[in-house]
Amino acid sequence: MEEKRTLSIGVIVFDDVMTLDFVGPTSYLEQLPSIDVPVEFVTISNKEGRIQPGNKVALHATTHFKDAPTTFDILVVPGGKGREQLVKDQEFLDYIKTAAEGATYVLSVCTGSYILAAAGLLDNKNATTNKIAYNFVASSFPNVNWVRQARWVVDDKWWTSSGVSAGLDMGYAFISDKYSSKVADEMARYLEIVPNKDPSNDPFVSSIDH
Amino acid sequence: MEEKRTLSIGVIVFDDVMTLDFVGPTSYLEQLPSIDVPVEFVTISNKEGRIQPGNKVALHATTHFKDAPTTFDILVVPGGKGREQLVKDQEFLDYIKTAAEGATYVLSVCTGSYILAAAGLLDNKNATTNKIAYNFVASSFPNVNWVRQARWVVDDKWWTSSGVSAGLDMGYAFISDKYSSKVADEMARYLEIVPNKDPSNDPFVSSIDH
Repeated sequence: MEEKRTLSIGVIVFDDVMTLDFVGPTSYLEQLPSIDVPVEFVTISNKEGRIQPGNKVALHATTHFKDAPTTFDILVVPGGKGREQLVKDQEFLDYIKTAAEGATYVLSVCTGSYILAAAGLLDNKNATTNKIAYNFVASSFPNVNWVRQARWVVDDKWWTSSGVSAGLDMGYAFISDKYSSKVADEMARYLEIVPNKDPSNDPFVSSIDH
Repeated sequence: MEEKRTLSIGVIVFDDVMTLDFVGPTSYLEQLPSIDVPVEFVTISNKEGRIQPGNKVALHATTHFKDAPTTFDILVVPGGKGREQLVKDQEFLDYIKTAAEGATYVLSVCTGSYILAAAGLLDNKNATTNKIAYNFVASSFPNVNWVRQARWVVDDKWWTSSGVSAGLDMGYAFISDKYSSKVADEMARYLEIVPNKDPSNDPFVSSIDH
């Protein structure tokens, strides 16, 4: 039996991150061992240990970015209110740029694409973002080809999704694309979720001008 | 203007917990400050600090159960593979029993109801659980009135949901019931999620005999 290589997955976390943003993709990725694909997660921040998502449930960053790897199979970049503070930390943003460039795939959820855009990574690429924040994000980074109506967008290795729970649908699509729809369906059954499989089915596009 | 009392919300976490289980309800509850209801979350485990959900993204427990409050407005009890180990820790299980009895509302997701049932809290009550694990859970605790086809079940202060993402739908229903559907709809829009509002719409009931 072929021994499967462990997939290395980096997850960017920070104070005031939106937890469900990254839990969308990771809830699928963490099931890869069920098809004999071992995974190893590293949570990376500009501090180690306790991370405080606002009033929310505490998280744990395993690694300070200064000590973190810069090559991952998959890098997950969530959004949240803390994105504004994050992009002011030039060293952390530089790390994210390097790690994203070195990663085989980059998956952003919600305003995670704001962080990628702030790092200059999405210029001339197709991408989407949270619909409530859409106008703000799109006007902040006019060199990105922002797609208004999209649950998620794929451009080469860059997967960007709409707000929060869109990360769950993108997680399904990513597994379906990289493994098979049968594998993705089984994971969705485990999560008891009915995935939205059509990237153009974006029920919240009207929030842009709400 | 009336000063709103801070809602205290306890979240049980443990090694090998399923993260998305508790993130379902907390993704709604953490938005209560948007309607001027302050919230305070405590994550409680049988250790403090880093919690390892299997191969998954690290979490942080703020409080050891021996130092934790026993009266909450809302206690959230997620499931996951670590439930088996948890129920063998009699002291932790006793704490959960005391805290759940003292809480105004108890919300369990997935096999979180296995933990509540193991503590003897669900005897003669209507409840549901993860559908893949249904037969195992139901046969383990025959004194509970297990409801096969239910996305979530409410029995007095006890809210139990089906597997993993069902916690998101129960979160919507809880906010809708305790505040208003308008508030819940606005939170769902923020999460960019289309909630399943019908507790009898249980797309995974067939998994029970799969």
